[in-house]
Amino acid sequence: MGKTRPGGRTARTKEVVFEAVAALIAERGYGNIAMTDIAERAGVAATSLYRRWGDVRVLVLEVAVEELMRERPLPDTGSLRGDLIAWGRSIAAGLASRDGSSFFRALIATTMPAGEYESARLATLAPRSKQISTMLARARERGEKTPSTSEVLDHLLAPLYVRALFGSPADEAFAETLVERLLAR
Amino acid sequence: MGKTRPGGRTARTKEVVFEAVAALIAERGYGNIAMTDIAERAGVAATSLYRRWGDVRVLVLEVAVEELMRERPLPDTGSLRGDLIAWGRSIAAGLASRDGSSFFRALIATTMPAGEYESARLATLAPRSKQISTMLARARERGEKTPSTSEVLDHLLAPLYVRALFGSPADEAFAETLVERLLAR
Repeated sequence: MGKTRPGGRTARTKEVVFEAVAALIAERGYGNIAMTDIAERAGVAATSLYRRWGDVRVLVLEVAVEELMRERPLPDTGSLRGDLIAWGRSIAAGLASRDGSSFFRALIATTMPAGEYESARLATLAPRSKQISTMLARARERGEKTPSTSEVLDHLLAPLYVRALFGSPADEAFAETLVERLLAR
Repeated sequence: MGKTRPGGRTARTKEVVFEAVAALIAERGYGNIAMTDIAERAGVAATSLYRRWGDVRVLVLEVAVEELMRERPLPDTGSLRGDLIAWGRSIAAGLASRDGSSFFRALIATTMPAGEYESARLATLAPRSKQISTMLARARERGEKTPSTSEVLDHLLAPLYVRALFGSPADEAFAETLVERLLAR
């Protein structure tokens, strides 16, 4: 409380900008947001937004990733099966919600083609990979047999994402089925 | 040859419109295409495009799906393993190509949120589901043990799609790994 953080002003500006972007996504969807809209809403100069993020899609992508990660703490149930089921259910529920669906579509729409802003694109799944690695490391410490991080991405997260995009939203029971299949190997 | 098709004029108009949309996607990417641009390029009235497709995203989505399906004929190698590997490799190669990547991104960007144009959205994966069903039916006739269509969608197509979106493009060897894993169960 009252502790000054280094870079406090920069951090506060980022917070104001992120709030403006999140509000614009919720209001208009992801398609129609220009850097100037964000600048106006946040009360900052568009030039400084361009200097920091380069492209409006990079900024929208960062906000979408942050909003999608804003959820219950990482489950720690005492077993990998329990952790992955709780984690998968929470993602499925998020993708099925109105806000979660808006931010997920913003993320998809602003993900860059290969070659453009490559690091922003590859960073999209980084927070999810980190969560998976944490759960797997805890399981290994308990002596459990674990799949790899890629296997969890490919066979739990990918089906949830593709169903959210093209199918009826995945329900939580489907997340559980995917985990049972992953661990049955 | 010279055979008149019923609805020939409608089919020809559709062809001209689809060519215009495909050219615009290749030139500009998926983001900046308006119904009026398509009307101008195709030489048809924008009102008739709206009457037939309702929303520019529905039209772009249909064209993207058609372009993505424009590929080698469905493999028929004599085994499900061979068919799925050839099919998966061909999809991975397509997603890694410049054109394939443009049309895939157009497809993703125009896929509707749940509730809007629901049938267009759910139809996106229909051509892929149909291909899978054909390969599985042939395998069952040969007496092979087969996974379900959903399992092929969730564990072969979904990882290829999610890697194309967020990762380094999936290479053809990865498609083969996914097939081996799917059939090892």
